Amino acid sequence: MTDSTLRDHAVRAIAECARIAAMTEEPGRLTRRYLTPPVRDVHALLRDRMDTLGMTVQVDAVGNLRGLWQPSNARRERLALGSHIDTVPNAGADDGVLGVVLGLTLVQIAKEHELPLAIELIAFSEEEGVRFAVPFIGSRAVAGRFDPNLLALKDAEGITLETAIRDFGLDPNQISQAAINENTLGFVEIHIEQGPVLEAEGLSVAAVTSIVGQTRFVVEFVGQANHAGTTPMHLRRDAMAGAAEWICAVEDLAKGTEDLVATVGKIEVEPNAGNVIPGSARVSFEVRHASDATRTSAAQALLEKAEAIAGRRKLEIRCHRQMDQASVPMDERLTAYLTEAIEAAGLPPYCMASGAGHDAMVMASRLPTAMLFLRSPGGISHHPDETVRLEDVEAALAVGQKFLERLAAELG
Amino acid sequence: MTDSTLRDHAVRAIAECARIAAMTEEPGRLTRRYLTPPVRDVHALLRDRMDTLGMTVQVDAVGNLRGLWQPSNARRERLALGSHIDTVPNAGADDGVLGVVLGLTLVQIAKEHELPLAIELIAFSEEEGVRFAVPFIGSRAVAGRFDPNLLALKDAEGITLETAIRDFGLDPNQISQAAINENTLGFVEIHIEQGPVLEAEGLSVAAVTSIVGQTRFVVEFVGQANHAGTTPMHLRRDAMAGAAEWICAVEDLAKGTEDLVATVGKIEVEPNAGNVIPGSARVSFEVRHASDATRTSAAQALLEKAEAIAGRRKLEIRCHRQMDQASVPMDERLTAYLTEAIEAAGLPPYCMASGAGHDAMVMASRLPTAMLFLRSPGGISHHPDETVRLEDVEAALAVGQKFLERLAAELG
Repeated sequence: MTDSTLRDHAVRAIAECARIAAMTEEPGRLTRRYLTPPVRDVHALLRDRMDTLGMTVQVDAVGNLRGLWQPSNARRERLALGSHIDTVPNAGADDGVLGVVLGLTLVQIAKEHELPLAIELIAFSEEEGVRFAVPFIGSRAVAGRFDPNLLALKDAEGITLETAIRDFGLDPNQISQAAINENTLGFVEIHIEQGPVLEAEGLSVAAVTSIVGQTRFVVEFVGQANHAGTTPMHLRRDAMAGAAEWICAVEDLAKGTEDLVATVGKIEVEPNAGNVIPGSARVSFEVRHASDATRTSAAQALLEKAEAIAGRRKLEIRCHRQMDQASVPMDERLTAYLTEAIEAAGLPPYCMASGAGHDAMVMASRLPTAMLFLRSPGGISHHPDETVRLEDVEAALAVGQKFLERLAAELG
Repeated sequence: MTDSTLRDHAVRAIAECARIAAMTEEPGRLTRRYLTPPVRDVHALLRDRMDTLGMTVQVDAVGNLRGLWQPSNARRERLALGSHIDTVPNAGADDGVLGVVLGLTLVQIAKEHELPLAIELIAFSEEEGVRFAVPFIGSRAVAGRFDPNLLALKDAEGITLETAIRDFGLDPNQISQAAINENTLGFVEIHIEQGPVLEAEGLSVAAVTSIVGQTRFVVEFVGQANHAGTTPMHLRRDAMAGAAEWICAVEDLAKGTEDLVATVGKIEVEPNAGNVIPGSARVSFEVRHASDATRTSAAQALLEKAEAIAGRRKLEIRCHRQMDQASVPMDERLTAYLTEAIEAAGLPPYCMASGAGHDAMVMASRLPTAMLFLRSPGGISHHPDETVRLEDVEAALAVGQKFLERLAAELG
């Protein structure tokens, strides 16, 4: 296979993502939530492609579309590839879907090159958590970690997850059988980075070392609402001023700690009127890092800082922990193979942590898992402007091909 | 008159404010907007008291209740006393009303002491600006500064000011005749401080030197909304972090400038989600000081600081000036008389600026004007917990009596 052929594959993959982006709940913008009608259209398109390649296709009981490529020259051990086909509201074309389409392209390449390697391609039905406010429903089932209590979840219209599954023509009692085949040697997810790092580095792709851990808090500063004209500065207990001092401290600590990200994304002030000193300021706080120790010590230091600021300003403070999720390392061996495949494809080897959660995070609890990131132009994702560069898609396919060739050689 | 009698007057005045506080639009809480039915009840009560004292009573065309005390031993020159009887929603009992009730009490004291001094008592109908979103409608008319264009203002139900005046049985064409009599030598308003200064100083009353000037801006920082997990700190353009840095700078400058108050009371962040770096943060800003030069240079320095912060952080910045209102000095002679009356009443003389606007600010454009503040326990106002201390009301009456005695002696 020549470079021009890989380029042809890349062009077709991008076009396929654009075609799938037209399958939406809302005319004029892409929104495709779990088990909604456009999901059937995506399944039909992918099933057609899989059939053409000679794959065995099924939809499992949680709605994941799964195709098995089992060439006659391959052993029973198989590799799993995949990503998700649901989207956020007003989404871009490539988040999730590109990983499914590139997985399909890699099956085609494996077929064309007669690689002795079985591949299961999984189009996860639910990753974003939009419809039922719980993410990773598809990969939870494949990882054998689906909690049946989730069936009672309701969407905004009051439809339970159980009913939604039945209405899609599936049997929720069969979800446990969606667990991945025990002959699966590993799972690899190709996904856009959804951040600006590869663009800043001038790189096409990276191997992911881990999904960072995450701690989330809500921190509420409570002071005394008062008249902005009649209350001298030294007699104020201004909740917003306290929150502002802390937001600066959050940024300072994060900037001073390598690879740490910390964010105050939300603030709610009462009474939030221009001529009233704020009586309370409730801010969100999240911190992420690949090292759990670094993350938890940063969170602890910032909580202590918040308490010190509140104490000095005579504010009350209330902290509610909302999430404490450990970092999930990717499989060392598969990640090394990916890194070597990047080099073998003639690209600079580069590794990075993923700051966002992915199906790979859930799959890693069940079997060796690795991820390949593609550059996100402008760092833009979850937005209609989300895109990919042709050369990066071509690079990802080249890496994928080298990776498959190595695995096939090792198994053969 | 002995001290115990002044105390009796003070007890009755506080009880009268409580009685008037029951005249409300909303059962269970005090809300009494301009020209609403409970205003008639207040007028009836005050008219009855004025009649009993032998005052000549009228309601002017903008709805102010006005009583003239013209003793036979007095010259035609008169002093005006008064404050407002409208309230904010869910108000306390003393804001405005106490000044009217104490004015009435001072007329009674003047009568009992046969002071040769004519007094016009004005119960301004509209000060808070709640109903038509424009304040000081009552005092504008009395100061001869009522703009007839205001008649087109609409309240929340779409009723124009003109219609509201007619519905109250008044003739809006007569408003120009509400202008105060040219024989009026000055206006004095007694009002609760609505701030914590007198309480912090341990004082009952103060003479007001000026109503502070005020500058208001909206400052908008615009950065780039982005994924909180995937965007490294050095690649962020976080609008909230920029706003927070500036809020700290506002507070620092105000704390470092004597008697300056500066407040960021309101913030609106987009998209305001915990896991998204804020793309924009729009904050209110107001600064007040008795010296216009100090105020405008503080505002200028803070705008430059905002621009510097935005520049360093690669944020865009937009500043919208909303208000630039000059400081209004009180009349020096009348204020000196008030200060001397405070001393003559056996209290420590104390002067302060008013951080809030009052009818006195409008009246000062027409005639010599002074204000006397009473301590606000807890600095609380515009709230059901607003109150006054008996000893402070008694002190205000003692000061008022000394002030009237001096004016009467000077005129006689």
